[in-house]
Amino acid sequence: MQLREIDPARLEGREPYFLITSLVVPRPIAWVSTVSADGVLNVAPHSYFNVISSNPWILHFTSTGEKDTLRNVRATGEFVVNVVTRELVEEMNFTSADFPPGESEFEWAGLDAAPSSRVAPPRVARARVAFECKVDEIVSKGNGHMVFGDVVVAHVDEALLVEGRVDPHLLRPVGRLGGALYTDASGDVFKLPRPTWDEVRSGRVAPPGPR
Amino acid sequence: MQLREIDPARLEGREPYFLITSLVVPRPIAWVSTVSADGVLNVAPHSYFNVISSNPWILHFTSTGEKDTLRNVRATGEFVVNVVTRELVEEMNFTSADFPPGESEFEWAGLDAAPSSRVAPPRVARARVAFECKVDEIVSKGNGHMVFGDVVVAHVDEALLVEGRVDPHLLRPVGRLGGALYTDASGDVFKLPRPTWDEVRSGRVAPPGPR
Repeated sequence: MQLREIDPARLEGREPYFLITSLVVPRPIAWVSTVSADGVLNVAPHSYFNVISSNPWILHFTSTGEKDTLRNVRATGEFVVNVVTRELVEEMNFTSADFPPGESEFEWAGLDAAPSSRVAPPRVARARVAFECKVDEIVSKGNGHMVFGDVVVAHVDEALLVEGRVDPHLLRPVGRLGGALYTDASGDVFKLPRPTWDEVRSGRVAPPGPR
Repeated sequence: MQLREIDPARLEGREPYFLITSLVVPRPIAWVSTVSADGVLNVAPHSYFNVISSNPWILHFTSTGEKDTLRNVRATGEFVVNVVTRELVEEMNFTSADFPPGESEFEWAGLDAAPSSRVAPPRVARARVAFECKVDEIVSKGNGHMVFGDVVVAHVDEALLVEGRVDPHLLRPVGRLGGALYTDASGDVFKLPRPTWDEVRSGRVAPPGPR
């Protein structure tokens, strides 16, 4: 293996974006719905998205630059994260176009909005999972603006829930890779039980070793 | 579709963790190597991981609770993110055991450490991609401690680089799902070119429409 040492400060133009987004993969996708101060409904995908806290539930997504979603979140303090599953991936991608402010992705995409329970922005009616969130804080670093949200209520398709969790083969979540590439995260699933220190120490679980 | 409304504050025990980690998926995996104040080498996987800024490169991972990695990062201000690819997944999982402080996962797992160029913690010698990082800030929310790191240098296997980016079929990145489940993100890859507003407005790209 021949490693290339890359100084990110020396990358030019769009290179830093293309390279980092093909290396930090697969990324979960938050399809974020918001409402503007004028009442225009917005929905757009964000793949700089993850959990920060599992108890209580606190999620975050990052906007690169100042876009409608970020403006709306700043103005209203609320958003909904809709989860992107395989059957919604074309709709998600359609809403990733550079719509100008004032144009509603819901309308252009022909997506029905369903009223939320605790926040003003609606969820995507066909989303099988949605998290209603209230903004906790917005942290800006580099060209990113990270929006932290407390989940006030979640909506989960009953058909997905088995013993309090969700099977990926039922959910069929989509992950983002580099460029225009996506992955169906239920395409090649495997199980690796986490070993305990007791199993490691006693040798009951052996290290994989050189191969 | 019958949606269940879930109030996360009413979930009990490990339920909040199991449910959120099976819904925010697939998550990229930062296999984070650090060194303690005493010089013990540590490496452990973290799947609350993503990009916040693509220019300059700023990454983050989150530690749930106070663990060795977090203590080391606080003590030294440096870490390395090794990317988990399919051929290293057994080793990654081995290092996820609850090793006590003072025990080196590198040693127990039989992993060679390679010296970094700009930071004290070594990288995993067999990792095909690694990011050397200096801590920018640590932000705590709920049970999570989010560590932001400026990437000072990256190492990428030459064989992966094609026109400044990395093909997922060559990289074979692994994503984390709920519980003990993982996904090979190169298992089912598809391409969705992002439409432009001009294509949408003119009707050259039509909305997916109801199906």
